[in-house]
Amino acid sequence: MQQRSEETRKHILDASLRLFSQAGYDNTGVAEICSAAGVSKGAFYHHFPSKQAVFIELLQGWLSGITEMMALDQQDGKTIPEILTVMAARMHDVLESAGGQLPLFFEFWLHASRDADIRKATLAPYHTYQSYFATLISKGIQEGTLRPVDPAKAAGVLVSLAVGLLLQGLLDPEGADWGDVAKESIQFFLEGLERKKA
Amino acid sequence: MQQRSEETRKHILDASLRLFSQAGYDNTGVAEICSAAGVSKGAFYHHFPSKQAVFIELLQGWLSGITEMMALDQQDGKTIPEILTVMAARMHDVLESAGGQLPLFFEFWLHASRDADIRKATLAPYHTYQSYFATLISKGIQEGTLRPVDPAKAAGVLVSLAVGLLLQGLLDPEGADWGDVAKESIQFFLEGLERKKA
Repeated sequence: MQQRSEETRKHILDASLRLFSQAGYDNTGVAEICSAAGVSKGAFYHHFPSKQAVFIELLQGWLSGITEMMALDQQDGKTIPEILTVMAARMHDVLESAGGQLPLFFEFWLHASRDADIRKATLAPYHTYQSYFATLISKGIQEGTLRPVDPAKAAGVLVSLAVGLLLQGLLDPEGADWGDVAKESIQFFLEGLERKKA
Repeated sequence: MQQRSEETRKHILDASLRLFSQAGYDNTGVAEICSAAGVSKGAFYHHFPSKQAVFIELLQGWLSGITEMMALDQQDGKTIPEILTVMAARMHDVLESAGGQLPLFFEFWLHASRDADIRKATLAPYHTYQSYFATLISKGIQEGTLRPVDPAKAAGVLVSLAVGLLLQGLLDPEGADWGDVAKESIQFFLEGLERKKA
């Protein structure tokens, strides 16, 4: 029974992902989701209070996938610049995982601008990543590999860079090897552009 | 007569911008645009072949506004790091100018992922900005203020950073003073994060 309920939930999420991506969030109703998922409206509302709730769960599922990919590199004796470099190399996998859901990704942003609940769910991970990067940068300063910058500000720059790379990678997948661009970006960010005064 | 035609065109663009932002691109028809603009369908199709054409013109108008704001700093004897710093300070104005059109901005990206013509119009300016930044960086290397990096790659990083800042500034206007964040970002990017080996 428990297992069947889990399956129903998964069918609803899979069908919604497909329909939202193809037809758009606005153009998809609960009736169409139920029909595509092969579930009754009663079963739908047993699992989700609304279409919006399904949307937010899809958003959170995608974001926690990114967090997992990024968190893999927390172990052992790497320096913070090394950890940031490995994380940048993961951008390739993040983009692969997002590729099929491209239009949905833009729907998240569009609806975040129109709906306070969706905005809250969309912005929360930015704040999480921001704190996470700030902690890494503080560690780098402590271990002496980074200069004593303001960790929160430097973290904000890293988040902006990651968001910009993600957006371009989604919009223009053929335009560049975005995994490579991410690695180079971190390198430039660490080393700086200015010629050092000798 | 010429003047009246210009006014009609402007009414159509203004009404479309308002309707696309409020109700969304998909939910707005040519009939509603005509009614809100106070023009006949004949007049609409005299000026634009389709709703898509209006959308692309709005996109291009917004982008050329950004380009104008950015191009103001091309004059006189500033070094490239100084020019980049002044450009970053303009981010505040760019966000102000985009604020009212927030949902439309996400519509551009969403529809770029679904419509090849819109994608082409959306991506073109990224390539323009990329070349433009690469030229600036080459000049910086020549004048000796920047180290001899690959100009195209460094330009790609600057574009990613700008896009990421723009997206966050649009989505979370209260979250930070994004003009300040942009200035700090350029500063970090120029100076680098790593502690210099003495």
